[in-house]
Amino acid sequence: MPFTVTVRDHMMVAHSFTGESFGPAQRLHGATFVVDASFHADELDADGVVIDIARAAEALRAITASLGYRNLDDEPEFAGINTTTEVLCRVVADRLAARIAAGALGRDGSLTGVTVTLHESHIAWASYGRPV
Amino acid sequence: MPFTVTVRDHMMVAHSFTGESFGPAQRLHGATFVVDASFHADELDADGVVIDIARAAEALRAITASLGYRNLDDEPEFAGINTTTEVLCRVVADRLAARIAAGALGRDGSLTGVTVTLHESHIAWASYGRPV
Amino acid sequence: MPFTVTVRDHMMVAHSFTGESFGPAQRLHGATFVVDASFHADELDADGVVIDIARAAEALRAITASLGYRNLDDEPEFAGINTTTEVLCRVVADRLAARIAAGALGRDGSLTGVTVTLHESHIAWASYGRPV
Amino acid sequence: MPFTVTVRDHMMVAHSFTGESFGPAQRLHGATFVVDASFHADELDADGVVIDIARAAEALRAITASLGYRNLDDEPEFAGINTTTEVLCRVVADRLAARIAAGALGRDGSLTGVTVTLHESHIAWASYGRPV
Amino acid sequence: MPFTVTVRDHMMVAHSFTGESFGPAQRLHGATFVVDASFHADELDADGVVIDIARAAEALRAITASLGYRNLDDEPEFAGINTTTEVLCRVVADRLAARIAAGALGRDGSLTGVTVTLHESHIAWASYGRPV
Amino acid sequence: MPFTVTVRDHMMVAHSFTGESFGPAQRLHGATFVVDASFHADELDADGVVIDIARAAEALRAITASLGYRNLDDEPEFAGINTTTEVLCRVVADRLAARIAAGALGRDGSLTGVTVTLHESHIAWASYGRPV
Repeated sequence: MPFTVTVRDHMMVAHSFTGESFGPAQRLHGATFVVDASFHADELDADGVVIDIARAAEALRAITASLGYRNLDDEPEFAGINTTTEVLCRVVADRLAARIAAGALGRDGSLTGVTVTLHESHIAWASYGRPV
Repeated sequence: MPFTVTVRDHMMVAHSFTGESFGPAQRLHGATFVVDASFHADELDADGVVIDIARAAEALRAITASLGYRNLDDEPEFAGINTTTEVLCRVVADRLAARIAAGALGRDGSLTGVTVTLHESHIAWASYGRPV
Repeated sequence: MPFTVTVRDHMMVAHSFTGESFGPAQRLHGATFVVDASFHADELDADGVVIDIARAAEALRAITASLGYRNLDDEPEFAGINTTTEVLCRVVADRLAARIAAGALGRDGSLTGVTVTLHESHIAWASYGRPV
Repeated sequence: MPFTVTVRDHMMVAHSFTGESFGPAQRLHGATFVVDASFHADELDADGVVIDIARAAEALRAITASLGYRNLDDEPEFAGINTTTEVLCRVVADRLAARIAAGALGRDGSLTGVTVTLHESHIAWASYGRPV
Repeated sequence: MPFTVTVRDHMMVAHSFTGESFGPAQRLHGATFVVDASFHADELDADGVVIDIARAAEALRAITASLGYRNLDDEPEFAGINTTTEVLCRVVADRLAARIAAGALGRDGSLTGVTVTLHESHIAWASYGRPV
Repeated sequence: MPFTVTVRDHMMVAHSFTGESFGPAQRLHGATFVVDASFHADELDADGVVIDIARAAEALRAITASLGYRNLDDEPEFAGINTTTEVLCRVVADRLAARIAAGALGRDGSLTGVTVTLHESHIAWASYGRPV
């Protein structure tokens, strides 16, 4: 996957973690996640792009809007799940992959994968990559 | 105040805002605040510094630890107050000023001011400066 | 002006400069300007903010949209003017000030100033500040 | 390719795009591209480096100088081609690969690949990687 | 290795290099290395993480503390070795791998690799990745 | 001084500090200083700039070259002086001011001041400002 295009957005959520190793993060707290969504392709399309960057940004914005400004502890889909940075990377990547599969981002199957990175602070971040 | 030294730390909090103009941020959500604490002085001390940077970092860490990993909506000191980025800048700056006044950071009154900047995302930040 | 709130946006323009000291930048070229708009106030409003950050971001977006994706050499308002980073800082700041004066950003005159910083690369930026 | 060394430079260009999906970017506009050139190797050389970093920086500077401060729409080599961020990543990477093949950067074939990332703004970037 | 978690720390060292190609860096000088340690895994653990981030940060801190605030030219382990950015990436990665192998970071062999990036300035960095 | 232009460069030095409060930094170690030199003016010149940015970058490069790739403990001018980040900010600012006074940067006295910021890591920096 020699070509990659990345767009950045962010979301602000509340949540808490279950597990002693989380220490003070077991309490209800929050995070700004700066979200980088990368789209991979082996070849550029006829316009010379990996993906229509405006549509990519819109797709990412729709996903961050569906997660942001919420207490994730109250979201039924995350019941019993620690919404760690790693887990949220996978959530965002899987949702992008679903949109790509549904044709919402164009490129008709010629995209090979997505990688999502969530920065939780200036000293910690996580990422998850998957094929599409 | 020609000399300034700045140290960076961060804190992760949950909170919600009261007021229609806040839109979706009226819901319980959260933020990572990357916190920059700047110390101002007209002259350097005999060691050639504005402030002992290790003590400055420790003082800032103590303050971010007292605020972080909490739902600020539940903290009595913030009852009835929107803990906006601007308000939290002032909280951190005032606490630093109190520590300086108590002699906890050295320099015996020769510091002239502090400025605190809180970055709430890659596209928004606030700051508050005051004399000490 | 102890309180400041800053929002970031960007614009992508073509232009050329007149004057031998500009060297190769006398040729038609272009720039991405990452634009930081800072709003200053002495006091916070009743909501605990310097300014409604959503309205501030919208105002900045309207201004960057009016300048971006253009060849500034062809814009009548810049005829005979070098649209340097410094000059564009002033253009953006003056337009923000006009919007503030027109009441488009709220705060009814309680804002004290604006500062606009344009980053032209990772190694060069400029800013312009003015009262409002 | 376990080892990578990256050097950063930038270039400022004007261009326009053909294709409705580009929206306002169909107009003549411009960009600052912050360019990261990464060199990959399986082993370090006798000096303990992937590549002589000064020569790498010079090679990159030569390439950015050949592209920068120009209207790419007027360059014969790009006639009929959208000089998107992705396309320009490949142009820079291919030129670096040609210099490596010509022996201009040393390491006699022991480099395994190059990756070039172009940042077009604080919220969008692209990259292209290839073997050498 | 679809999941990655990264923590950042730094270290400040003095050193000099042997070899004409290093130019002025043959003289005793120094560097701040901003160190990013990435941990890779195919699956998350029961808590939903790649690794306990607090333990990861501690492990990295122990390693940067063992290298930092030193003249590396005087360290017996580096006798006759250029402590280039690339070499130090491998040193840090190998030490992290040893700690992982010793069970000091948990995850019992389910981590697949580590990548260490050292930023020597705003325009140059290097990385080294290896399995664990 | 409403207008400011800033250029960035860097230097890599070795040094040690005298004074117990410096802890491990009393040992010979080193630092990369990312150096931001800001030039202030009340008005733009006829070209629309604060200062010829190429000449500003050259002046800064000359100063960082005179300090970089050295053990500052061995430089006679710093004998008995802790070359802290703050002290080096002043050294760079004073040297820039001297060059401005000598006419090496143009603008004939219409510059009002310089501010120099040295970033010693991702979590600490200092600055010094002075009139010219």
